[in-house]
Amino acid sequence: MTVNFALLGAGRIGKVHAKAIAGNADARLVAVSDAFAEAAQTVADTYGCAVRGIEDVEADKSIDAVVICTPTDTHADLIERFARAGKAVFCEKPVDLNLARVKQCLGVVKETGAVLMVGFNRRFDPHFAAVRAAIDEGRIGPAEMVQITSRDPGPPPVSYIKSSGGILRDMTIHDFDMARFLLGEEPDTIFATASVLVDPAIGEAGDFDSVSVILTTASGRQCSISNSRRATYGYDQRIEVLGAEGAVAAENQRPVSIEIANAQGFTRPPLHDFFMTRYTEAYAAEIASFIAAIVEGKPASPSGEDGLRALALADAALLSVKEGRAIKLSEVL
Amino acid sequence: MTVNFALLGAGRIGKVHAKAIAGNADARLVAVSDAFAEAAQTVADTYGCAVRGIEDVEADKSIDAVVICTPTDTHADLIERFARAGKAVFCEKPVDLNLARVKQCLGVVKETGAVLMVGFNRRFDPHFAAVRAAIDEGRIGPAEMVQITSRDPGPPPVSYIKSSGGILRDMTIHDFDMARFLLGEEPDTIFATASVLVDPAIGEAGDFDSVSVILTTASGRQCSISNSRRATYGYDQRIEVLGAEGAVAAENQRPVSIEIANAQGFTRPPLHDFFMTRYTEAYAAEIASFIAAIVEGKPASPSGEDGLRALALADAALLSVKEGRAIKLSEVL
Amino acid sequence: MTVNFALLGAGRIGKVHAKAIAGNADARLVAVSDAFAEAAQTVADTYGCAVRGIEDVEADKSIDAVVICTPTDTHADLIERFARAGKAVFCEKPVDLNLARVKQCLGVVKETGAVLMVGFNRRFDPHFAAVRAAIDEGRIGPAEMVQITSRDPGPPPVSYIKSSGGILRDMTIHDFDMARFLLGEEPDTIFATASVLVDPAIGEAGDFDSVSVILTTASGRQCSISNSRRATYGYDQRIEVLGAEGAVAAENQRPVSIEIANAQGFTRPPLHDFFMTRYTEAYAAEIASFIAAIVEGKPASPSGEDGLRALALADAALLSVKEGRAIKLSEVL
Amino acid sequence: MTVNFALLGAGRIGKVHAKAIAGNADARLVAVSDAFAEAAQTVADTYGCAVRGIEDVEADKSIDAVVICTPTDTHADLIERFARAGKAVFCEKPVDLNLARVKQCLGVVKETGAVLMVGFNRRFDPHFAAVRAAIDEGRIGPAEMVQITSRDPGPPPVSYIKSSGGILRDMTIHDFDMARFLLGEEPDTIFATASVLVDPAIGEAGDFDSVSVILTTASGRQCSISNSRRATYGYDQRIEVLGAEGAVAAENQRPVSIEIANAQGFTRPPLHDFFMTRYTEAYAAEIASFIAAIVEGKPASPSGEDGLRALALADAALLSVKEGRAIKLSEVL
Repeated sequence: MTVNFALLGAGRIGKVHAKAIAGNADARLVAVSDAFAEAAQTVADTYGCAVRGIEDVEADKSIDAVVICTPTDTHADLIERFARAGKAVFCEKPVDLNLARVKQCLGVVKETGAVLMVGFNRRFDPHFAAVRAAIDEGRIGPAEMVQITSRDPGPPPVSYIKSSGGILRDMTIHDFDMARFLLGEEPDTIFATASVLVDPAIGEAGDFDSVSVILTTASGRQCSISNSRRATYGYDQRIEVLGAEGAVAAENQRPVSIEIANAQGFTRPPLHDFFMTRYTEAYAAEIASFIAAIVEGKPASPSGEDGLRALALADAALLSVKEGRAIKLSEVL
Repeated sequence: MTVNFALLGAGRIGKVHAKAIAGNADARLVAVSDAFAEAAQTVADTYGCAVRGIEDVEADKSIDAVVICTPTDTHADLIERFARAGKAVFCEKPVDLNLARVKQCLGVVKETGAVLMVGFNRRFDPHFAAVRAAIDEGRIGPAEMVQITSRDPGPPPVSYIKSSGGILRDMTIHDFDMARFLLGEEPDTIFATASVLVDPAIGEAGDFDSVSVILTTASGRQCSISNSRRATYGYDQRIEVLGAEGAVAAENQRPVSIEIANAQGFTRPPLHDFFMTRYTEAYAAEIASFIAAIVEGKPASPSGEDGLRALALADAALLSVKEGRAIKLSEVL
Repeated sequence: MTVNFALLGAGRIGKVHAKAIAGNADARLVAVSDAFAEAAQTVADTYGCAVRGIEDVEADKSIDAVVICTPTDTHADLIERFARAGKAVFCEKPVDLNLARVKQCLGVVKETGAVLMVGFNRRFDPHFAAVRAAIDEGRIGPAEMVQITSRDPGPPPVSYIKSSGGILRDMTIHDFDMARFLLGEEPDTIFATASVLVDPAIGEAGDFDSVSVILTTASGRQCSISNSRRATYGYDQRIEVLGAEGAVAAENQRPVSIEIANAQGFTRPPLHDFFMTRYTEAYAAEIASFIAAIVEGKPASPSGEDGLRALALADAALLSVKEGRAIKLSEVL
Repeated sequence: MTVNFALLGAGRIGKVHAKAIAGNADARLVAVSDAFAEAAQTVADTYGCAVRGIEDVEADKSIDAVVICTPTDTHADLIERFARAGKAVFCEKPVDLNLARVKQCLGVVKETGAVLMVGFNRRFDPHFAAVRAAIDEGRIGPAEMVQITSRDPGPPPVSYIKSSGGILRDMTIHDFDMARFLLGEEPDTIFATASVLVDPAIGEAGDFDSVSVILTTASGRQCSISNSRRATYGYDQRIEVLGAEGAVAAENQRPVSIEIANAQGFTRPPLHDFFMTRYTEAYAAEIASFIAAIVEGKPASPSGEDGLRALALADAALLSVKEGRAIKLSEVL
């Protein structure tokens, strides 16, 4: 079976998925849709597919799956619409910034029985996936303490900040998903602290740029998350897990790994410049996993529920920052 | 000037200091005192000094300095006694497990004008000292986020746990001092979570074995601490600091640094087995710093105040664990 | 301009180039030819191109370039034939195993003025290319001592050995090219020693499996090469260059870079399993460079002359092994 | 038993040994002798021993062992003299720069039955010793290819060069011993190339500053050595061994192992500045091994024969440089 795809949203991340679909032997990109005709045309020219309107895609029975890369506030509507149209749906995170809306949307998806996968790409990074595999294989015993360091090279424009839902829902949400992916038990309590150290304009926009979080599970497992919107040395993405019998860690990645030595010392180049280059392999593996779920008729993962839980952790974290206390996830979910 | 030393307490850590004194060109170990005559005699035989009683040492005008390595509950009394006797005092941490008693003791020391140094050995580790130097030299800009990972190879006997004051006052206290050493600003708020994952007997003794902490300063700087009483791969001691212009990290140390490669992968040996081997250089540098303070008539550092503040953070952390909220240091200090 | 390609030879390495051509925006794979119809058809199906005979390709004026991945003993004939047909020619190394035949072939190419590029893929590895760039940027001063370690995971079948021209012409030849790429001066003297340590059958076939080489240039620069047909830990590919002002090194690459720690130590996974996975990026960059040379009308590099010189070094090395003395390159070239 | 030591030669390396003896519980430094009274007095003051003449030491029955750190041209005479006087002798390498003289000296030692140990300190480096242990434990199978990289931070004064016997007898000789230590089989053939790349004055003095060597054993095992008198990044001392079942390597050591990251990359400090700091632990372990041999009445290792063989390799290497051919060790030994 070859899965026929339509791409909704031909911006930066949309192009990444278009390339992944084009390079996958089991899939074909047949249509692209975007409010900006030019963006859609560029993708259409590169991959030899048609520019189509949303309605056309919805009505076309030959299209099996859609990839939603449109602005966040359109996600939930589009998920519902295409789930109802009988298509498999891949949606970039988040489903929505409002927890109630997410629940409502997932309800619709459930009714339709549609395949829904949420884009937490990092689960598909080969290094992070190998960390999880090491745990699953019992190589470190039960996971007990997870440490996640996740830092952007530099802050986004304040305009982006304003529509992002804030750092906890925009950036830390990836780490919340990673924590759930690795802890082996649902976090039920969260404490977060957040401050503005990088750019006062971020604070004026009501957001933070530096975050520390502690998650705990019912049995006492712990996860620490450290975020910053600025790391001058590149896109800093590390995880490590301490288990009862050992530990496993995934170190940073860089595009070129030479080392130059002189009287000043031994110097390796900076890390990847951002997620597009850092997670190239992850994006391809993510779409491959979505395609495999469709072809094999299996549940897609991460699921809508995964999207919901990560967002709930973000909401709880924000409440914790405001109230200076540990929040039970049950207070928000 | 050669500084004449008496060693009070000839146990494990006492022997480390005896060796450091004996190897220092500006110092001489002239006396050793211990409730166990045999322990004192061993040190006396090795370094050619006299076994003496506490009163003798106190009365001997030729003795310039004492190193207190006796049980914790004797520290404050001995500090007061030898400060009053006009001797420079080096005391293993902590001054006392009770904050009020520490304050009282420091008051006595202040009255006498005696030199008092508290044994936070890690400040003298060449790698951690180099981290601090890199910050002081402006190589990473102002420190903003500190991450401290500190894990013992295995849990101590429960008997030790019972007299230790608990993991926060016994183990995390070193990390509190390191946080203060590196943050460049006093932490004023603390959140801690603690659980029992390693050994139920530790929980039965009223203590924890796994701890995560977040410290924050008035300007929003953050420090994360991760502790466990068990790391199967050795004594895990790492720090890293993110600054506005870069980052600096001190990695783990191992006694032998070969790498063996075969079909299973590339393997380096485990880390040091514990603090005695990991911090060998630190202990020697610590005593050298104490001697230099005496010889040059300068303030010794870390001071009694440093000991007090680290203990206050431990007390605040314990309160945080109990109440599930962030604690202002001013609530306990 | 889009460059139309025909692929000659649809085996393992042919498929690598087919993928690189298909993924390059400036190129199109229009034809594939192979003595085994099935192999050709597989490539044709995957990339949507036609299966054609050699004569057809030769006669088709719309085909701009050919990639020769056929058996070694057909290379020189095909190069001459397609150079005469006015096509740009990319040929896997070597041009031929016989030095005189290579010279003759290059003479024909020169007459026709055709573009010829020889497939020394390692020059295009991003890490090795960065080593060269560091030298060119003056970051280590003039290169003085080059060390190349190149080891296969395991020996090839003896049948392969027999038609390979021997380890020096088959395997070390890549390192000879790398030495020339990095030394900044032509090697003019060579000493080699070779032995059979891995598999006696290799010795019975008249070849070696373990090689050490020293190259020197007129000014005294030196290069050491270490080869083995067996490295249980994966495909070992490292270079380092000592210059007057510093050094630069490219370390090994692995598909997954996690580290697992336990009581036995800290273990990272083995290296890539062989050149197909290790040099994925290099193969794509190599073809991109060939296409760029065609499009921009510039000389292709590595050139036929580069192929000739690397082979001459291999011949000189073999003579050195036989005679136990340093050989001047002028003795064979 | 406590071994009473006399130190002959109180220069730089003499002081290293004095410290090692003083710190060893089974030894006592009782006398020091040096042509420069002041140098002897400094050691005497530091370690509380007597300044004595050579004759006095020779005649003193209470002195069990001597450590010879005098100029090279006095070594053989002193070894013979003190062997005849019934003392255990530790001598810094080399025994002599003349192979015939070494043989003669070893003959005398044999007659007297004296304990003689030659100072190849690197065998006692914990990292290199661990490499050897890994081989002995069968962790990589039989050693097949050894690579030794050994580079000084900068060239010595030309005055030193002139009395050194040349780089092959002065510097590479350590690597010859290491090759023998690791190959598991005597090298019987050697090829060497040498050039002047660092300082023309070294060439004018008849010596070289850059050396590459290949050693081979009867069964075909190979060892490459790379030497330079200049490495701007510090004292570069690495070994790696490829075996039939794996490989083992000892990486470089640095006094401080922090890493600083910024927009220019990730930088670790330079290596140790020279052998005195790099091999601190090795020197202590070396003397401890000598003392243990005396106390336990066992053969000391490395022996005089080890010194002889390393020198013979150096002589053969020099002949190889001159004649441009591989030299059989039997041609010089």
